Amino acid sequence: MKRTIGVCYYPEHWSEDRWETDARMMAETGITWVRIGEFAWSRIEPVEGEFHWDWLDRAIETLGKAGLKVVLGTPTATPPRWMIDRHPDMLAVDAQGRPRKFGSRRHYCFSHHGYRDESRRITRALAERYGKNPIVAAWQTDNEYDCHDTVLSYSDAARAGFRDWLAQRYQSPDALNRAWGNVFWSMEYTGFDQIDLPNLTVTEPNHPHVLAFKRYSSDQVVDFNRIQVDEIRKHSKAPIAHNYMGKITSFDHWKVGRDLDIASWDSYPLGFLIDRVDTTDDRRRAFLRQGDPDFQAFHHDLYRGVGKKGRWWVMEQQPGPVNWAPWNVAPLPGMTRLWAWEAFAHGAECVSYFRWRQAPFAQEQMHSGLLRPDNAPAPALEAAATVARELRDLPDADAGTSPVAIVFDYDSAWAWEAQPQGRDFGHFEAVFAAYRACRALGLNIDIIPPDTADLSAYGLVLVPAVFSLTDPLRAALASYRGIALLGPRTDVKTDELSVRLPLGPDVEGLDVSVVASESLPPEDVVRLAGKGKFRRWFDHLEGSAPVHLMTESGAPAIMGTDHLRYLAGWPTDKTFARIIGGLCDAAGIETTPMPDGLRVRTTSTHRFVLNYAPVARKWHGVRIPAAGVHWEAL
Amino acid sequence: MKRTIGVCYYPEHWSEDRWETDARMMAETGITWVRIGEFAWSRIEPVEGEFHWDWLDRAIETLGKAGLKVVLGTPTATPPRWMIDRHPDMLAVDAQGRPRKFGSRRHYCFSHHGYRDESRRITRALAERYGKNPIVAAWQTDNEYDCHDTVLSYSDAARAGFRDWLAQRYQSPDALNRAWGNVFWSMEYTGFDQIDLPNLTVTEPNHPHVLAFKRYSSDQVVDFNRIQVDEIRKHSKAPIAHNYMGKITSFDHWKVGRDLDIASWDSYPLGFLIDRVDTTDDRRRAFLRQGDPDFQAFHHDLYRGVGKKGRWWVMEQQPGPVNWAPWNVAPLPGMTRLWAWEAFAHGAECVSYFRWRQAPFAQEQMHSGLLRPDNAPAPALEAAATVARELRDLPDADAGTSPVAIVFDYDSAWAWEAQPQGRDFGHFEAVFAAYRACRALGLNIDIIPPDTADLSAYGLVLVPAVFSLTDPLRAALASYRGIALLGPRTDVKTDELSVRLPLGPDVEGLDVSVVASESLPPEDVVRLAGKGKFRRWFDHLEGSAPVHLMTESGAPAIMGTDHLRYLAGWPTDKTFARIIGGLCDAAGIETTPMPDGLRVRTTSTHRFVLNYAPVARKWHGVRIPAAGVHWEAL
Amino acid sequence: MKRTIGVCYYPEHWSEDRWETDARMMAETGITWVRIGEFAWSRIEPVEGEFHWDWLDRAIETLGKAGLKVVLGTPTATPPRWMIDRHPDMLAVDAQGRPRKFGSRRHYCFSHHGYRDESRRITRALAERYGKNPIVAAWQTDNEYDCHDTVLSYSDAARAGFRDWLAQRYQSPDALNRAWGNVFWSMEYTGFDQIDLPNLTVTEPNHPHVLAFKRYSSDQVVDFNRIQVDEIRKHSKAPIAHNYMGKITSFDHWKVGRDLDIASWDSYPLGFLIDRVDTTDDRRRAFLRQGDPDFQAFHHDLYRGVGKKGRWWVMEQQPGPVNWAPWNVAPLPGMTRLWAWEAFAHGAECVSYFRWRQAPFAQEQMHSGLLRPDNAPAPALEAAATVARELRDLPDADAGTSPVAIVFDYDSAWAWEAQPQGRDFGHFEAVFAAYRACRALGLNIDIIPPDTADLSAYGLVLVPAVFSLTDPLRAALASYRGIALLGPRTDVKTDELSVRLPLGPDVEGLDVSVVASESLPPEDVVRLAGKGKFRRWFDHLEGSAPVHLMTESGAPAIMGTDHLRYLAGWPTDKTFARIIGGLCDAAGIETTPMPDGLRVRTTSTHRFVLNYAPVARKWHGVRIPAAGVHWEAL
Repeated sequence: MKRTIGVCYYPEHWSEDRWETDARMMAETGITWVRIGEFAWSRIEPVEGEFHWDWLDRAIETLGKAGLKVVLGTPTATPPRWMIDRHPDMLAVDAQGRPRKFGSRRHYCFSHHGYRDESRRITRALAERYGKNPIVAAWQTDNEYDCHDTVLSYSDAARAGFRDWLAQRYQSPDALNRAWGNVFWSMEYTGFDQIDLPNLTVTEPNHPHVLAFKRYSSDQVVDFNRIQVDEIRKHSKAPIAHNYMGKITSFDHWKVGRDLDIASWDSYPLGFLIDRVDTTDDRRRAFLRQGDPDFQAFHHDLYRGVGKKGRWWVMEQQPGPVNWAPWNVAPLPGMTRLWAWEAFAHGAECVSYFRWRQAPFAQEQMHSGLLRPDNAPAPALEAAATVARELRDLPDADAGTSPVAIVFDYDSAWAWEAQPQGRDFGHFEAVFAAYRACRALGLNIDIIPPDTADLSAYGLVLVPAVFSLTDPLRAALASYRGIALLGPRTDVKTDELSVRLPLGPDVEGLDVSVVASESLPPEDVVRLAGKGKFRRWFDHLEGSAPVHLMTESGAPAIMGTDHLRYLAGWPTDKTFARIIGGLCDAAGIETTPMPDGLRVRTTSTHRFVLNYAPVARKWHGVRIPAAGVHWEAL
Repeated sequence: MKRTIGVCYYPEHWSEDRWETDARMMAETGITWVRIGEFAWSRIEPVEGEFHWDWLDRAIETLGKAGLKVVLGTPTATPPRWMIDRHPDMLAVDAQGRPRKFGSRRHYCFSHHGYRDESRRITRALAERYGKNPIVAAWQTDNEYDCHDTVLSYSDAARAGFRDWLAQRYQSPDALNRAWGNVFWSMEYTGFDQIDLPNLTVTEPNHPHVLAFKRYSSDQVVDFNRIQVDEIRKHSKAPIAHNYMGKITSFDHWKVGRDLDIASWDSYPLGFLIDRVDTTDDRRRAFLRQGDPDFQAFHHDLYRGVGKKGRWWVMEQQPGPVNWAPWNVAPLPGMTRLWAWEAFAHGAECVSYFRWRQAPFAQEQMHSGLLRPDNAPAPALEAAATVARELRDLPDADAGTSPVAIVFDYDSAWAWEAQPQGRDFGHFEAVFAAYRACRALGLNIDIIPPDTADLSAYGLVLVPAVFSLTDPLRAALASYRGIALLGPRTDVKTDELSVRLPLGPDVEGLDVSVVASESLPPEDVVRLAGKGKFRRWFDHLEGSAPVHLMTESGAPAIMGTDHLRYLAGWPTDKTFARIIGGLCDAAGIETTPMPDGLRVRTTSTHRFVLNYAPVARKWHGVRIPAAGVHWEAL
Repeated sequence: MKRTIGVCYYPEHWSEDRWETDARMMAETGITWVRIGEFAWSRIEPVEGEFHWDWLDRAIETLGKAGLKVVLGTPTATPPRWMIDRHPDMLAVDAQGRPRKFGSRRHYCFSHHGYRDESRRITRALAERYGKNPIVAAWQTDNEYDCHDTVLSYSDAARAGFRDWLAQRYQSPDALNRAWGNVFWSMEYTGFDQIDLPNLTVTEPNHPHVLAFKRYSSDQVVDFNRIQVDEIRKHSKAPIAHNYMGKITSFDHWKVGRDLDIASWDSYPLGFLIDRVDTTDDRRRAFLRQGDPDFQAFHHDLYRGVGKKGRWWVMEQQPGPVNWAPWNVAPLPGMTRLWAWEAFAHGAECVSYFRWRQAPFAQEQMHSGLLRPDNAPAPALEAAATVARELRDLPDADAGTSPVAIVFDYDSAWAWEAQPQGRDFGHFEAVFAAYRACRALGLNIDIIPPDTADLSAYGLVLVPAVFSLTDPLRAALASYRGIALLGPRTDVKTDELSVRLPLGPDVEGLDVSVVASESLPPEDVVRLAGKGKFRRWFDHLEGSAPVHLMTESGAPAIMGTDHLRYLAGWPTDKTFARIIGGLCDAAGIETTPMPDGLRVRTTSTHRFVLNYAPVARKWHGVRIPAAGVHWEAL
């Protein structure tokens, strides 16, 4: 697989007489790909039905002439102002019932069929015009689905769509009442048109009601995306990507990914650290200018899984300070190179910096680029050029294999949002805790979907906090010959978010039941026999399976067979690494406990060692400076 | 008085072929009472006017055959979906002006007359059908008035009702203007129809405006409840109860209680500790699995006071982890027995566990019961059986007498919510601080209403933070021969929430005036001469009465006569216990300083010692294990 | 200049038979000025068009007879209830889109032309009646513009007005699109009527959109105020004031001030400390009963600048505990005297206590006065009398001169609110940090407007966080012969809130550019070479100018010429004082490092030393007690 670097570019933001210089400089930097177009609707179609292609033709031509390839984005994340007059009710409505206004971006409701038609229309127009253009060598649909929490919309269109979706799913109100347990508080319906969206209830709405609305909303994203894919495919053979964001769980990326050719994501390590990573204040301070040492890697592995045949990119790579976190610092020198190499070490085809030149205007004017707004090089330009040079010196390689897999399941994210039971309980957080533990042991990891039917490639499979196993995964686990660690809180619910009866988990060969559960406040832990601690969650287990680990008070902490084990609690980071380490030993998987801040990943040809620490670290005698990258051939 | 245990049961949630087994097991456990029906409206009347009695007939019959008695609840906390079509404006409106939706429970506005008629209609139907049924031996009106903050509704119905209420109370807009001091900011009205509800003003609305709306809203609860009581009484001689919740102050329980036969409350010690108790983080951690050592007792004593002739129950007793607190842990083994015995020690007639079997579906699927959802016994089942056995071995007894009384006044709660002056000042909290201090001294305590006219049964009466004394209490205090401790912030306002002039308090024989007041931020205290501290509040006192305690800087901290004293500040827990201890000595009341976590209460026949600590404690040579209960005959 | 004291009085709140006594007592206290009328609209015009002048005539007459002078307030902050029926849409609408209700005060939208007419009408009526009355010797327009966040209103009237304002400013939608960079996310408009107010967008609206709305809203306040001024001037020659509040930045006080004769403000040191001052928890505790040692002084100096020819008053002076802070303590004895003397030391003509007598009713019944509600003297009465006596013993003086000036710019406050980039970055805070540093060195300071064209009076000028220099100031800086310290974050933007190109600052003679910036979270600092720290903000500098101070890592911390320097970061308090100290030395300005809590100011005749510390402090051998004031002739 060929590795490349790219950049995001907005010709419409700049004077046309600058385009050629920009293109030349990009080529000189070693850039292969240039993403354009995804916010340009008001310039492509300034008035309804009146298309201005000329400037875009010339921009693409200019880039092509410099030897660059274009990723062309559909501009549907930014419908122009005139469209609001045409479809006043296309605006999303928030959970408080307020329609959101025009004036920023992503101001549309996925359920609005009028806007879907507009989206299809502009996509078709772009595909017709550029589908055969050899410079346009890839496509991007829309931009960052759900950014700014835009998947859930409480609009009239969503309500109407939800009712149809429910009618299709349940066929009768009685079936829905039974599935949801609506008898509980006389919440029974006699017609689908009685069902409202689950916001603004007096106390919490019924959990399956919430889960259904989240499933419905995710399906709207899948549909919305597929309409664009279908239009593009009619006219172009170039691969199609979408750029996902970090820690977005509001729609099923696995499903969207199946309609695309490439998964890509937008990686902003410093903004994410301060805003989205589940970590301690101490670690937030220690990694302030480097980003969390596992958060990027997790998404790399996730999106490698989401990408068809493992094809994935970083579509936007942070180049310097951003504008959107509560505070925005500059990366430690070296990090913009390290982040790129980490992506390649995880199998990325392309790392594309966002953006070519810092815009001096509008909302992101404090977001740095490879160039400063005055055209002088920003620090990341040299880093990008360095990476490009280094890429030329390394052989092509693929992502390599992983001995460990972790199941990641969007439905579980929704289920536990509807029913957290503990304020800090979430599926993403539970999976990420497992991921951290594996990373601390130097392991390659695959993130796999919840309907995985074949686990035979892995020696160890982790299934944390999956509310309800799918049939394929349940079957795969029953016959699995490696070691699978389920839990905590795995397969304790039905697919409709009721308590599974008989009490779960329900995997053939594993006689363990969760008979009660506790969510633990931050000041409380469950101590394990010997050493170690659970926090946040503790399942009370019963069953005939052997107990492998006990709590200090004698309750089972891990129970199960040689192949199937159930983990009763949410371990602290150290405890989790110790548990995983033991399972790896049992499974014959080699582990390498990593010094703090140092992370490793192994491709098909090399081992890459990355230093996220703010100080130099030693690795097998090699000194790796802060923000340093070291690689060695296998 | 006969002591019994009970359980809450939802036959409509379960297959009918299970009912008989359930009933038999209940009887075997030693259960006397089974509460049913309070959320079953959609099964009783699934379509308007079409009643389905058969299943309920059979359920009652099945329970009766097993020797059980039924508490039948009116289902008005959960109006079914069809009713919203009939009365779209019956939904409560929140302080932000948003109507709340169907989809959970308590989705009605107390002011809505259409819904009152529906409530009367279904209550009448139930009373007509089961009023003479001997199995139905008690009634419950609605469920947990104000749960989920449902007393205050900012609806059109409430506005119309409020205007009528104001017109009745004040008779003329001028009288209202004078009572409220509306001249202050040109807030004067010339007609009652100009007066809006006190939400969404630019800055805070006039405090008496808020107080009036809270009084009005409380009256709507009284009226709503009375309608049901009146209907039931036409057909049944069985006693009628309502199940109040913990720390609910939005309506006057004294007034509702006067229309009922039994007061009952729903006791969830672990959820309350984490969510509602005014305590420190350290104590929250220490009592995480036991509950606050005073919070349940306080409500027991409060509801004994609210119950007619002192009749009161725990209608819902936490059996294990609940679902609704920010985090939900399991009780320390033994606590589900301890909580029951504590209730009996405070005079409860019945402790009824919530619920028989954990529901596997809907909002409370993580709320434990006496049985697990798979019908296996949950830990609390054995505890309930133990309590039932122990009850048989103890003689009947009543609650015993109390040497100390504390006044609790809902109007004061509203007054200080309208005008806290310090962010952490509240009537409930002030009363609870006094209660804690008395409990730390091993005292029996009565909670008495603000219109108490005879204090002669008590040696010590505490009147903390009562904004305006009622005439009967004022007179009772003036002639009181025990020791009464008023303050801080007591009787400093008129009944209309103006400053009392001459400056209060105004009790004959007590020449003390509050001439200024300070609210103290958490980082500030007023140190007392010798030792001790006030926090949160400090009244500057003047007057001719002797000073009994001074602050370090020489200001009066306690002033008054032998019988009437005024406490200038809000003492810390230790200081308060020391102050109360001194007053008890003076009043000839015997005190027993309690070790931390140990609490005592004395009935007419026994002394009960309960250990809330997570470790064993000694009591007069007896070792009481963690969560242990010890009793000794008097 | 003659110094006087005053008081705020509400004859309409009291029985008329008390007025004469009150007036006599005021005179005896040494009071010169009595402000009345500003909340009395419902008594002046209880019904539309029906004026009741008699009581006001008599009140003014009574005060005049006692030798007092009246400041007459227009009552437009409290339109009476009948006006809402006439103009239902005059109510302000909040950022959530909710119209706010009648029932408190300031319930009007500045953009509403119907209410402007009403405001003109009542002002004209007052001016016609009392314009020639010699007792009415000054006027106040409205009351505390923006109190309770009332400048920004998201009403239909505001939207219509904003569109007109935009059309005037930009003349064409294309010009606006270019100015705002609306191409960025296809936010381009083709007509002014497409532009909405910048609330409720999906993510943040375009920053210049926000800035424009803040500018528009500020202009409405200027217009609103000018209408009243114009009416009063037609009938009266008495000076006109408005009473500004502390830390209000939502409208341009410089512009409002140019239409008035006197600037005044309402000084509540204890409430401000707990609620509005940017300081540490430790200092908040240390100054709990004294107020922040710099906050009042800052406003004194600001409003001296805002007042025409430096004329300014304290219109409301805190006399004791207030009612509106989260907690409300009593001042340390002596502070109500100290605060008055501090104002006089900064050049105040009058310090007017709020209020004469504590109102026993309505929202401010817990706000103390000079008298208690029972007519007994409150502690501040004696303090006021003392100040009055002391004033008689001191010669008239004026404010004296200042060697240092700091630029304060409302547009910059709005710019950084729209684009803070770091959660704790604000113009007010940046200016106040500079002010604190100067005060710690015992300096007299002038606060000057952003369009200052002549800096020659000053040896040192500070220009912190001014987003875009005005042309006059830019020119003045270029030719300045003292030392000017710009930054951090100064002149880095255009007037339309884009990045300045070439990169700013753009001052002739200063070759320094800000090429990147970082906002620092609270746990992070940039260490300076030697000692010292920046926090919150750090600008990366380039240019040919000499580097005067470096960071530990070798980046420029201060760069510039002898006369023009740029400060790259936001210094901690100690670092800032050290930096300013060094610049003063270089500029030949004498400094006096002040002990903690001690503050000094020098008028044309005396040096005043004020002790804000809770303990005595020494000053050149003189012991100044806690809350003490010491003065010495120059």
